[in-house]
Formats: sequence, C-alpha cells, structure tokens
Amino acid sequence: MNDLLQTIEPVTLMGPGPSCVHSSVLDALAKPTLGHLDPDFIRIMDAIKQQLKTLLHTRNALTLPISGTGSAGMECSFVNLIEKNDPVLILINGVFGMRMQDVATRLGADVDTLEFDWGTPVIVDVVQKQLSKKTYKLVAVVHAETSTGVMNPVSGIGSLLKNKETLFLVDAVTSFGGTDIFMDDWGIDVLYSGTQKCLSCPPGLSPVSFSRAAVDVIEARKTKVPNWYLDLSLIMNYWEGATRAYHHTAPVNMLYGLYQALCLILEEGETRVFERHMKTHLQLVRELDHLGIRMHVDAACRLPMLNAVCIPDGVDDADVRTRLLKQYKIEIGAGLGPLAGKIWRIGLMGHTARPENVEKLIQALKAVLPPLRDR
Amino acid sequence: MNDLLQTIEPVTLMGPGPSCVHSSVLDALAKPTLGHLDPDFIRIMDAIKQQLKTLLHTRNALTLPISGTGSAGMECSFVNLIEKNDPVLILINGVFGMRMQDVATRLGADVDTLEFDWGTPVIVDVVQKQLSKKTYKLVAVVHAETSTGVMNPVSGIGSLLKNKETLFLVDAVTSFGGTDIFMDDWGIDVLYSGTQKCLSCPPGLSPVSFSRAAVDVIEARKTKVPNWYLDLSLIMNYWEGATRAYHHTAPVNMLYGLYQALCLILEEGETRVFERHMKTHLQLVRELDHLGIRMHVDAACRLPMLNAVCIPDGVDDADVRTRLLKQYKIEIGAGLGPLAGKIWRIGLMGHTARPENVEKLIQALKAVLPPLRDR
Repeated sequence: MNDLLQTIEPVTLMGPGPSCVHSSVLDALAKPTLGHLDPDFIRIMDAIKQQLKTLLHTRNALTLPISGTGSAGMECSFVNLIEKNDPVLILINGVFGMRMQDVATRLGADVDTLEFDWGTPVIVDVVQKQLSKKTYKLVAVVHAETSTGVMNPVSGIGSLLKNKETLFLVDAVTSFGGTDIFMDDWGIDVLYSGTQKCLSCPPGLSPVSFSRAAVDVIEARKTKVPNWYLDLSLIMNYWEGATRAYHHTAPVNMLYGLYQALCLILEEGETRVFERHMKTHLQLVRELDHLGIRMHVDAACRLPMLNAVCIPDGVDDADVRTRLLKQYKIEIGAGLGPLAGKIWRIGLMGHTARPENVEKLIQALKAVLPPLRDR
Repeated sequence: MNDLLQTIEPVTLMGPGPSCVHSSVLDALAKPTLGHLDPDFIRIMDAIKQQLKTLLHTRNALTLPISGTGSAGMECSFVNLIEKNDPVLILINGVFGMRMQDVATRLGADVDTLEFDWGTPVIVDVVQKQLSKKTYKLVAVVHAETSTGVMNPVSGIGSLLKNKETLFLVDAVTSFGGTDIFMDDWGIDVLYSGTQKCLSCPPGLSPVSFSRAAVDVIEARKTKVPNWYLDLSLIMNYWEGATRAYHHTAPVNMLYGLYQALCLILEEGETRVFERHMKTHLQLVRELDHLGIRMHVDAACRLPMLNAVCIPDGVDDADVRTRLLKQYKIEIGAGLGPLAGKIWRIGLMGHTARPENVEKLIQALKAVLPPLRDR
C-alpha cells in the first residue's frame, strides 16, 4: 500500500463528523466486493432496510440508504417532493436550515422561512402562528443543528402538522443514532440522515425514510423528478420487490460498513447507546466547567452529541485545534458562518461517545490552553 | 462481525461492474477514518487529483471524484452545464446513451438525438452532417457502451468539434483505466467515470474532469445549478485552494480506496494495463469461439473490457448465470433492455483482466453449458 495510506495514524474524531469508527466496521468495508445484484448482497440490503426501520421506529416501506452523503439525502428529499412554486416553510436556526433553504430555492419552490437566533431552538408557538396564516406543502426543520449545538423540538412541530396535508421533513443527520427518534409517532413524513455522525460509519451514505403520504405526493407529481440519480421512483425498484431493476451500481462495500455499524447499535441496545451519549455529554460539560469553559447553548436544548463550546477570550482558535490534532491526535471542529472563531464544536457521536475520550480531550486541553481567567 | 458479512465468499466479478478488487484496495478502505479537513487527508485528495489528471492526459484543474457513483457523475456533468432550453445533441447506441437523454431532458434541455443500431458504433459522418445543420451547446457520447460492448469513436467525434463553441461530453465510466483516453488531445471538455469498472475500486465514486471552456460555461450561467449537492462551483472550493471550504463531508474511506487503486495502475503502467486488457479479451474471444459462442459486436469496435456474447440457442440465460455464481463463484452480466436474454456481458475490467480468470470462466462454462450445436 502506498505511503500516504500506510502512515495514517488513528485520530480521535471529536469534531462534527466523521466520528470514530469501530474496528469491526472498518473490517466490514474490506470484505470482498459482491455484485450489486448478487443474492447474498441483496440479503444485506434487506437487512439494512429492516435495521433502519427498527431504529427510526417507522413502518415506512420506503426506508433505505441513498448513495451519497447526508447532503445527498437532503437533496433527495426536496427534489422528489418539490415541484415549481410549491409553498414550503423552512425553520432556520443554523447553517443546515439555511442549506435547506438554498436547496429548495434552487428547485423552484416558493420558500418562506422562520428564523430563530443561532444557539436557540425553534419556537413551536411561532411556527403554529405561521401555519395558521398559510398552507404549506411541506415544513422542514433540522433536528440536531450541527452548526450551533441546538436540539429543535421536532415532536412539538410534528404535533402541529398531524391530520394536515402538509408534509413534515426532518434533517436527522446528526441526531440519528444518538438520541430518540420516533418517526411515525412524531408525525415525520420524510427524514434523511448521514452515516458519519452517531451511526459511526465512514461518510458516504444517507439513510432516508418516506411515509406513505410522502410516496403519494411523489406518485402524484405532474413533472418528472429533475434529478435522475436521486429519483426515488427508480431507486425503489432496485431496493424493493422480486425484480431488483438495476438503477445505479450500489456502493457495495460502504453498505457492508453501514450494516455492521447498525448491528453494533442494535446489539448494544438503543437505550444504552443514548444513555452513553448523554452521560459522556454531561461529563464533558462538567469537566469543561472546571476549566472555566462555558457552553454556547442553554442546558435545556443542548445536543448531547455535538457540544458548542465558547472559545475562551484570548485563545487562538486555529492554534488550539492544530495543536490538539498534531500533538494529541484529537480532532475538534471549528465554528461555521457567524460562529466561526467564537465556538468549538466537540462531537461525542456514536463510537466517540466514551468517557475515556472525554478524559483524553480534557487532559489535552489542559496542556494546550493558556491559563484561563475566571476559573 | 455479523454473520451476513462473515460468510461473504469472494466472487470472481466478470460482469459489467463491479470488477474484482485488489486486496491492497480493500485494505485501504479499512484504514482509520480521518476528518475531511485533516491535512493528512487533504494530501490524499491532492494526490488523487494529480493521479486522475495523469491518467486522463489532461491539464484540467477541475478534475476530482464526485461523492456518488458513475451515474452521479453523469448527473453532475449535465446539471452544471445545462440551463433550460439549451440545445444538446446526444448520440445513442445503448442504455447509457438513453440514460443521458433522460438526464438532460429532465433538466429542461432541448435534446436532439442521433440513434445508431445497438451493437454498432456511432458513425462520425452522420454526426458531422447533423452538426452542419444546427449549432449545439453540447454534444454527448458514451465512450464504452456497457450495455452492448461497443467502443464509440470518441477522438473522431472530438475532431468535428475542435475550434467550435460546442462542448464535448464523454461518458468514460467503463473505458477509463482499460483503454486509451487522451482528454485534451481528443478535445473532450467534460468527462465522467466510475470507480467500479477498470479502476477496480468498489463502487461509490465518480471521477470527473472539466476543461477551462466548460468551467467558463458554468461561471457564465444565468441560473444557479438546480442541484446543491452536485454544484461544482461549491465543490471546487473544497477540493482546491488554501481555504478548503466545507461543502459536504467527503467519503473519506472510499477515497483511500480510489487512491490505492490509482496507485496500482500507475505502478503497473498504463501501457501494460491496457495490453493486459486487450490480451485477456483476445484470449476470451478465442476460447469462446472454441466453444462455439459468437460475439455480439464486430471485431473492429469491440470493447476489450466488456464482452457482449450471444447466448447460444436453447441455453437458459438465467440458469447459466445462477449456476456460474452458485457453483463456481463467477459473476457474469445479463443483457439490458432489448438485449435481455440475447447476450451475456462478460467483464474483463481492471484487476479482473487476468488470463487465469478467463481460463476459470471457460472451464466453468464447459461444465455448465449443454453440448452446443455447430461448434
């Protein structure tokens, strides 16, 4: 193997993703490639669909991983549901809400937005008020806003939309696998995620799930989906049924990895996995507090898996991150957009969410940071 | 690791892709995941760009792998270049030419097509005649038509377009890594490929390359690219320059695999790799002839890496393929569309193109096929 690969040293991935990957998932990636129509591979595809349904608590038949990263899942969700001038409401309190707005606008949707301060959650009452003024085809929100560390009240927003024709679309890129998601009970019609966050599989796939109501909307489209690669009516024919019509060549080895990553979560048990995320999060907050480092987000709506941390005054953002990476082989994330230079994003996602990783980071921070005021 | 993965037995992949993957490429996939902004990973990204430029014989700065399979590369090429009502000419002699037509039509292009019999190549004179009648923004053709086993005269078509404003788009999904491609000399402006054919990396990535003229067209767009995920003006900012602006999380481990697969080709040397493809192809044709099995395509325009073979009369297509897979662990491909049930597609792509694999297949065919007439 070439030098650039031989010399890769493991990094403790504590940024906003990718997260640390269990060795059995890496081993899975390296299993022999099978054909994308091989019955042994189709068995793995079927198992993945079932695993995703179990973990999302949904009965949606159309539940599968898209052959692209989390952002491909976002693209896929909008492009299949939206036709020109469709009224869409997007709830924004961070970069990924803004990305949704960009995606939907490019597709010609009639996009309204409600914006909330970055670092605070979407307010359900404000959404309710807007819904009383106008009828939307689709309302979209990010569950775990990775850019700010805020958890949005998805079940509350879902309640507003129950028994309405409006579809409810949720970005679960960072939340899936790290906290509760009850897709059917919460009235979520469409959900997409990514593999490189709490599922702790390398980046490259995007699990999506579409309700019957969402599939009805796709089937009733007046125009063809203006994206052949992500057209679910075609992709479905490969992932379902007896025929398995070829669409594109599935990323076989990546799917092995996802399957194994989902096996690990199911073996450990959802409840324990979520508790582990919460415990390490609380450990991190406590230890950072001892160092005099404050959290950016109120305790009531903090994400356990992605901790937005205020960079202490007088500390050089990039220098600290570089030293953590070079000297301690720990990666943490920078702030995005208006939060660049103001926060660090410390991920405790999936396999990363272990007490020893928190301890390792805290020791490294103690060594790297200058003495802080006001401890 | 879970049972479904533990029990995967290696298959000799002799279908239309994926092809056999070298063990060092599988090992590369399993190297520890790095962050997508880690300097050590960015070094690998830079190396991949250079490898692709070398193998495509191009100086195009915009040369990189898209985070999706070959069909995502097709989508990416059209969606970045096409705006509503743009006149486009697509040359069709198989499934993948038809797919181009579908992709371009969904994007609102004004699509003209020239159709040629399946199993025969595009005729340059016919294209020339059409180009004298109408000016196109873009002419598109598939280099190696995987559905029929035909090589199209890409350099000949390119000559017609030199010094014209029309962009020349080539699908090199199956040809790249198995036969000559001189992107710049042949006047190709846009090219996409896939990793799972002659590059012998698992499916999941699509190398693309865009000429300066093509980038100028992107930069002069009147409308935003209606596909955020595949918007090259955004993707470029991650793959180029000092800043490396985050767009989506790159499929890190898949890129390790691609890097190693490209290293193998460069180490063996292009000329030797292409000779190996041609030699095993001629060996296969000779051996099949001894069995009384004819080729579907004239010798003059046969693909070395994808052999379309007439299914002998009275032979049960699916039964033979199933027995080859179950009893001999060899995968060959079925025919697509109008060629379903009429041909098999025998891939000799990349790592698969070795004399011992041809021999293994021939022995298995001898055992599986009923005695054939007219040997």
